[in-house]
Amino acid sequence: MSSTLRVTIWNENRHEQIHPEVQKIYPNGMHTVIAQFLQEAGMQTQTATFDQPEHGLTDATLAETDVLTWWGHMLHKDVDDRIVDRVQKRVLEGMGLVVLHSGHESKIFKRMMGTTCDLKWREAAEKERLWVATPGHPIVEGIGPYIEIPHAEMYGEPFDIPTPDELILISWFQGGEVFRSGCTYRRGRGKIFYFRPGHETYPIYYHPDVQRVITNGVRWAAPEVGATIPAERLHGVPLEPIPGDTASA
Amino acid sequence: MSSTLRVTIWNENRHEQIHPEVQKIYPNGMHTVIAQFLQEAGMQTQTATFDQPEHGLTDATLAETDVLTWWGHMLHKDVDDRIVDRVQKRVLEGMGLVVLHSGHESKIFKRMMGTTCDLKWREAAEKERLWVATPGHPIVEGIGPYIEIPHAEMYGEPFDIPTPDELILISWFQGGEVFRSGCTYRRGRGKIFYFRPGHETYPIYYHPDVQRVITNGVRWAAPEVGATIPAERLHGVPLEPIPGDTASA
Amino acid sequence: MSSTLRVTIWNENRHEQIHPEVQKIYPNGMHTVIAQFLQEAGMQTQTATFDQPEHGLTDATLAETDVLTWWGHMLHKDVDDRIVDRVQKRVLEGMGLVVLHSGHESKIFKRMMGTTCDLKWREAAEKERLWVATPGHPIVEGIGPYIEIPHAEMYGEPFDIPTPDELILISWFQGGEVFRSGCTYRRGRGKIFYFRPGHETYPIYYHPDVQRVITNGVRWAAPEVGATIPAERLHGVPLEPIPGDTASA
Amino acid sequence: MSSTLRVTIWNENRHEQIHPEVQKIYPNGMHTVIAQFLQEAGMQTQTATFDQPEHGLTDATLAETDVLTWWGHMLHKDVDDRIVDRVQKRVLEGMGLVVLHSGHESKIFKRMMGTTCDLKWREAAEKERLWVATPGHPIVEGIGPYIEIPHAEMYGEPFDIPTPDELILISWFQGGEVFRSGCTYRRGRGKIFYFRPGHETYPIYYHPDVQRVITNGVRWAAPEVGATIPAERLHGVPLEPIPGDTASA
Repeated sequence: MSSTLRVTIWNENRHEQIHPEVQKIYPNGMHTVIAQFLQEAGMQTQTATFDQPEHGLTDATLAETDVLTWWGHMLHKDVDDRIVDRVQKRVLEGMGLVVLHSGHESKIFKRMMGTTCDLKWREAAEKERLWVATPGHPIVEGIGPYIEIPHAEMYGEPFDIPTPDELILISWFQGGEVFRSGCTYRRGRGKIFYFRPGHETYPIYYHPDVQRVITNGVRWAAPEVGATIPAERLHGVPLEPIPGDTASA
Repeated sequence: MSSTLRVTIWNENRHEQIHPEVQKIYPNGMHTVIAQFLQEAGMQTQTATFDQPEHGLTDATLAETDVLTWWGHMLHKDVDDRIVDRVQKRVLEGMGLVVLHSGHESKIFKRMMGTTCDLKWREAAEKERLWVATPGHPIVEGIGPYIEIPHAEMYGEPFDIPTPDELILISWFQGGEVFRSGCTYRRGRGKIFYFRPGHETYPIYYHPDVQRVITNGVRWAAPEVGATIPAERLHGVPLEPIPGDTASA
Repeated sequence: MSSTLRVTIWNENRHEQIHPEVQKIYPNGMHTVIAQFLQEAGMQTQTATFDQPEHGLTDATLAETDVLTWWGHMLHKDVDDRIVDRVQKRVLEGMGLVVLHSGHESKIFKRMMGTTCDLKWREAAEKERLWVATPGHPIVEGIGPYIEIPHAEMYGEPFDIPTPDELILISWFQGGEVFRSGCTYRRGRGKIFYFRPGHETYPIYYHPDVQRVITNGVRWAAPEVGATIPAERLHGVPLEPIPGDTASA
Repeated sequence: MSSTLRVTIWNENRHEQIHPEVQKIYPNGMHTVIAQFLQEAGMQTQTATFDQPEHGLTDATLAETDVLTWWGHMLHKDVDDRIVDRVQKRVLEGMGLVVLHSGHESKIFKRMMGTTCDLKWREAAEKERLWVATPGHPIVEGIGPYIEIPHAEMYGEPFDIPTPDELILISWFQGGEVFRSGCTYRRGRGKIFYFRPGHETYPIYYHPDVQRVITNGVRWAAPEVGATIPAERLHGVPLEPIPGDTASA
């Protein structure tokens, strides 16, 4: 782990190219906006997008990534399975993963969860209010009792995920639904944070509290050192005598 | 465990005596309404109230109780600590505990949780919608995607409880808040279900879906047999030889 | 859910064909031994093996299966991904899954967990003692404080799995290791139980306590009814008025 | 939270006064040994013992404590309930709590857990090996696959605690038992770490790996900032209009 956190911001970056209303909000892609506020928080960032060779996620890039953020929507099914394998391997080795909004249906998130990650949804430019359920958690540092987003896409329960290790934020929607909007998981040596806000047709990644939670979430997901377990895992050698076993101590 | 589930319905039963608007809704106390629908579901019920000797929770009563339901509000602080000790002991031995509404602040619930169990609240006769977050769970058998209550007191996050083992229901409130309204815990050999609805000034315990969830919750909390661990726990006797230890096998 | 539990016992069934010492212990395959004691417990059983068309796990078979048990070892990588997809889908819909011993490395278990499911191991015919960590749990009904197996393969920590919902049994090994040997998970509407014992070269599936835990585990994993969530999930229709939204209530 | 971590080491300090064999190992009390290695790790320490007024845990002392460590055994029942209330309140506000060895039966640990915290035990100077179950966790930073202690008191399962949020270490004992030796919990805004080693008749707090885990555990339990929830919790004021409610927005 380097002293400066190294973050790779992955974005499908397709809506920005084909939908004028998205282009207007994010003329250089959502990834550049996310990269900028993470840089301003002192992190070292690089971006990667679907259209790059290997989706921009080469072995070399991942090897130098402490935390990967993921935004995707239209092209989930077109993401190369070999890249998904590679990202999963790195997460299990300790790389943090922050999954944003429609990334809930990405191959990588479903791979890490083992479930469909399906949910209810509606696009009606309605008000969302994300309530803090775990006030002492570092992911909500600097946030008040709730975050309010004036116009958002709705995601509703049931959200088909394993019970989160920690449930950080729960959303209220004007149209009548609720949603587990901030969820943490530990998988292997890696930490995963799912954070709901971020629809492409609203300027949600410019919202100061949304930026703050993503920044906190990236910091929280940073690799931790942990124990030194040798690769060969001490296979074969008993530590205590086993009657009749010739390899025993 | 008897084949017929034996349920004791505990009620503080004070609002019903001193507040005419509550008396009107529950002329014989909330406990009689709860007892009736549990009986109709095939359970054997008895009631116990604050004013009875030992609050109606004698050793004999608890010994014959498979599941205890708890409603209290005004008199939490006046509940005898020795009775709380007794109930806690029985829960840890395997008796189920279903805590209703304002019971979140009861001594017994705070005792089992270790936290303040504090929450935000408001009384404004607003709409509540409880969403199912764990569709496959037996506590929500027979329920649709949500339960709607036209007029309810509001409880909001943060709710100061340990992370529930399972989060079954999440409430949406018209005034803008959310709440973890159905939570399960295992403590010792006992199972605990907290269920939010039930304010005394609304006829909530007559609502068919509320009755259904309480009925399911009581069934879910029923004692399970488990393993036979002898009381003396095999103290002192090693199962394997310990060099230099004279008591060893 | 039928009143009689319908269990499909899946077995790779290759060691039994090519290793004389395994053939001697399980002349008709491990699956027939498992099927027999589940039948004696009142369940309706069928078996399925790797060599059958579609590995014996056709859509029709899975549709009539309440709980699937899984034993595999040599041929994990050769299991058809389409069959794994099919089993995962059924688990998420509510079918129980009981994964036995070396099944920890099966595609289906790794799929449900999202991790490598890797562990330390050794084959030295050593003593194993499985301690009950959750005495009130129905999976250990009828078991004492521990189960002792005179000769077992060793599995040791770290076991690369998500934190189990419940940790039922922890193994002690004569050679000096420990292992989380009984773990439960809820994924989608399905329940999963991993149970460690069962190496092919020892007569472990004849052990009465091992049979008892598997029987209990299959009963525990049986589908539960839960809530009725319509397939279309109410997409699109707000339940409350949203200013400016024409589809709103 | 100060930049230098402020740790208060609480010790019953009675065995050290009345048992010569303990006095020989810890002539100035276990607390001084623990304080010293935490100081060497850069922390600011103070000690507090049972015999001091208010057990050394005045409001002023606790207000300046980031993390409290707790060792007790003979005098659990004599600890003043008002001091236990005070410590519990501070933990729920965010002070970390590291409970050592026989502290499992302390009033404060049982208060935070809600269970008996009972366990099996034996004193036979046997070998203990603590295996890392969560290799990526910061509490085991710098530790190998296991910690070996040549002579220890045995603690065995079942350990009557709520399911830990994270299970960090599992012990193997020479005499045949296992134990969940490193467990984490979040309660309110506070973090709790239970760590098993530490019997008074063995020089366990001089063991480098034991010192390392306690040091890591204290760092892990340090307060986190989290969200700013006003004390009054916004009671009473709805954020959205409620038809018929005069206080509504």
